[in-house]
Amino acid sequence: MKGFRFSAVEAAIKKPGRLDLALIFSDFPAQVAAVYTTNKVQAAPVIISRQRSQNGKCRALLVNSGNANACTGEQGMTDALECGRKTAEALGLSDEELLIASTGVIGQALPMERFRKGIQPLVDGLDHGTLDDVAKAIMTTDTFEKIERRSGEAGGKPYSIWGVAKGAGMIHPNMATMLSFLVTDAEVDGAFLKSAFTQAVDGSFNAITVDNDTSTNDTALIFANGAAGNPVIKAGTPEGAAFAALLHDLLLSLAKLIVKDGEGATKFVEIRVKGGATQADAKKAALAVANSMLVKTAFFGQDANWGRIIAAVGYSGAQVEQERVEILFDDVVMATGGIFAGGDAEAAGTRVLQQKEFKVTIDLKIGGGEAVVYTSDLTYDYVRINGDYRT
Amino acid sequence: MKGFRFSAVEAAIKKPGRLDLALIFSDFPAQVAAVYTTNKVQAAPVIISRQRSQNGKCRALLVNSGNANACTGEQGMTDALECGRKTAEALGLSDEELLIASTGVIGQALPMERFRKGIQPLVDGLDHGTLDDVAKAIMTTDTFEKIERRSGEAGGKPYSIWGVAKGAGMIHPNMATMLSFLVTDAEVDGAFLKSAFTQAVDGSFNAITVDNDTSTNDTALIFANGAAGNPVIKAGTPEGAAFAALLHDLLLSLAKLIVKDGEGATKFVEIRVKGGATQADAKKAALAVANSMLVKTAFFGQDANWGRIIAAVGYSGAQVEQERVEILFDDVVMATGGIFAGGDAEAAGTRVLQQKEFKVTIDLKIGGGEAVVYTSDLTYDYVRINGDYRT
Repeated sequence: MKGFRFSAVEAAIKKPGRLDLALIFSDFPAQVAAVYTTNKVQAAPVIISRQRSQNGKCRALLVNSGNANACTGEQGMTDALECGRKTAEALGLSDEELLIASTGVIGQALPMERFRKGIQPLVDGLDHGTLDDVAKAIMTTDTFEKIERRSGEAGGKPYSIWGVAKGAGMIHPNMATMLSFLVTDAEVDGAFLKSAFTQAVDGSFNAITVDNDTSTNDTALIFANGAAGNPVIKAGTPEGAAFAALLHDLLLSLAKLIVKDGEGATKFVEIRVKGGATQADAKKAALAVANSMLVKTAFFGQDANWGRIIAAVGYSGAQVEQERVEILFDDVVMATGGIFAGGDAEAAGTRVLQQKEFKVTIDLKIGGGEAVVYTSDLTYDYVRINGDYRT
Repeated sequence: MKGFRFSAVEAAIKKPGRLDLALIFSDFPAQVAAVYTTNKVQAAPVIISRQRSQNGKCRALLVNSGNANACTGEQGMTDALECGRKTAEALGLSDEELLIASTGVIGQALPMERFRKGIQPLVDGLDHGTLDDVAKAIMTTDTFEKIERRSGEAGGKPYSIWGVAKGAGMIHPNMATMLSFLVTDAEVDGAFLKSAFTQAVDGSFNAITVDNDTSTNDTALIFANGAAGNPVIKAGTPEGAAFAALLHDLLLSLAKLIVKDGEGATKFVEIRVKGGATQADAKKAALAVANSMLVKTAFFGQDANWGRIIAAVGYSGAQVEQERVEILFDDVVMATGGIFAGGDAEAAGTRVLQQKEFKVTIDLKIGGGEAVVYTSDLTYDYVRINGDYRT
């Protein structure tokens, strides 16, 4: 990866002994594309970065875990701006060239004393830091770090795309956020980068659900600094298509890691809806099934409970004709024509659900709309992790 | 209660030793008002009763538990029609005068042999049965029977309203349904009965949520047979207002009993949203909070976690200005102006959540829209009850 440097330090914002402050720095001005939470309650860093990333070019990202700086009012804005300014100064950048992200407890002021102390060591660390350090520093209740790497080629010049992510949902103790940061040394047309990144996020992070709670801090962004020296990758070219495919593949891998690391999850389930009146209808149905507490507990119980699935499809708001609906667990037809398939479907379907990973296919047989959503099961541990009092 | 008779028998549709087939019979033609599930996947009895209750007058209700007769296709319709016809014959009624309801397992054919055997004993039982028997016969995973009685007066004539209900949500093993049946001997104008009942259902059964799963069989209906001999209760009169108030009070009591008996519930929580841009906005916000898995697990954990609540409000789709939002646990202000209220709010709020029942008030401070939703917490037992394999 050319022209990017990384750093992470322990600023004691999180529990002692864990990295919690990280920096991504580009040696050159980089095209930036970003997607932020749709929640109307937004953390200070989201408000700031959303505005700055609209400029299209940035140099650096400052991120902390342990405190979301959300629901902190004007103080939160003042604090975020100061942290950004001090870091930009130390890097010799203008404020506008630096983006900010935070994840952690909602409603508590940033521990500014410790944050300030961390900035110079953080900047100094750019000489020897790695993206793995950043992946570690953004972890909250994540049980493993999430990092993916891809490489491609454009005009004979090899380039790389690297990305990190942290846990889905809003995680105890009222943690906010799904975060994902990507860097590529490819030279990419700015408008194309935005559209390709937005599409890739839609097919990955927007296709996973652990608990259907959209956080105040969700942020996904990519820096492209062109250090690879390739001819500019543009829309409507083979190079553009290849880059978009790599981007989607990398984001989908990160998204799947997030679901697999979902709180208390014991199952990884792909919900595929086919035959929807529209693509939007298919997504509605898939999300209703993926978010149904009854369906998710049935997955945990390995209960081949297709009745709960067809019921969720029925209330999803999608166009449904019950006498057409077909439901499969992997390749086992559980219901067809809206009624139980009979035979050994129950036994065979149960065997499918006993796997750690399986696929539920729902064919509405109305139109051509199709959507895929990835989800986990609802377990005792989910209740324990989110029910325990904050410590 | 004049002019109504009740009966329940054990037809072995459910586990042996439990009443599972019930009958409500009016000695006179009764005005009927009914509300059915909005789920697009609907059980045979729902399809049949929806059409019959449109006639406005009926005499009887046949209900079974243990089998929902949902997702059973044409066979399910044939079976439901036959059960209805045989019962109507035994009662000397036309098919159209009898309504049908079912609750229980989805996707399995009715055990017709046992059902047929149960009909004559059921009809014979009308001589000595009670509404309590009906309340028992419709229970599935309910841990207690739900029955409420009210009495009023119109034109010097006393009248009664009695009602029964069964569990909320779609209950293990893929049980379908919230059912509620009311009878009154008051003489009520048909159109007024429909509007009053619909409004009362909206403020009661449509204001509770255990797991946000709308079933295939939900049915709420009322018979008014006029046996009290009162002058017809009409809209826009004091008698009409009094009747509507009694009806709402009775339904709300039943709705609260359903939440209190929610699967694994340890808390009963009133979510009140004030200051919404519209009433619909307030309801959106209240439902998002009431259905948030993270909020419900925090209630279980007695974690004064207002951050999850404001986040749920933020993604509810309601108009929200985060710097206005105020959140109270009972009378304890947890957040004001969108930020933590500070002081001893944390400790005081935690004490509120340690109660079995408490109120969460969210003031959006935008307009006059207000809505109340009742919910329960998300517990280990919810996961156990819904996760255990069907036995």
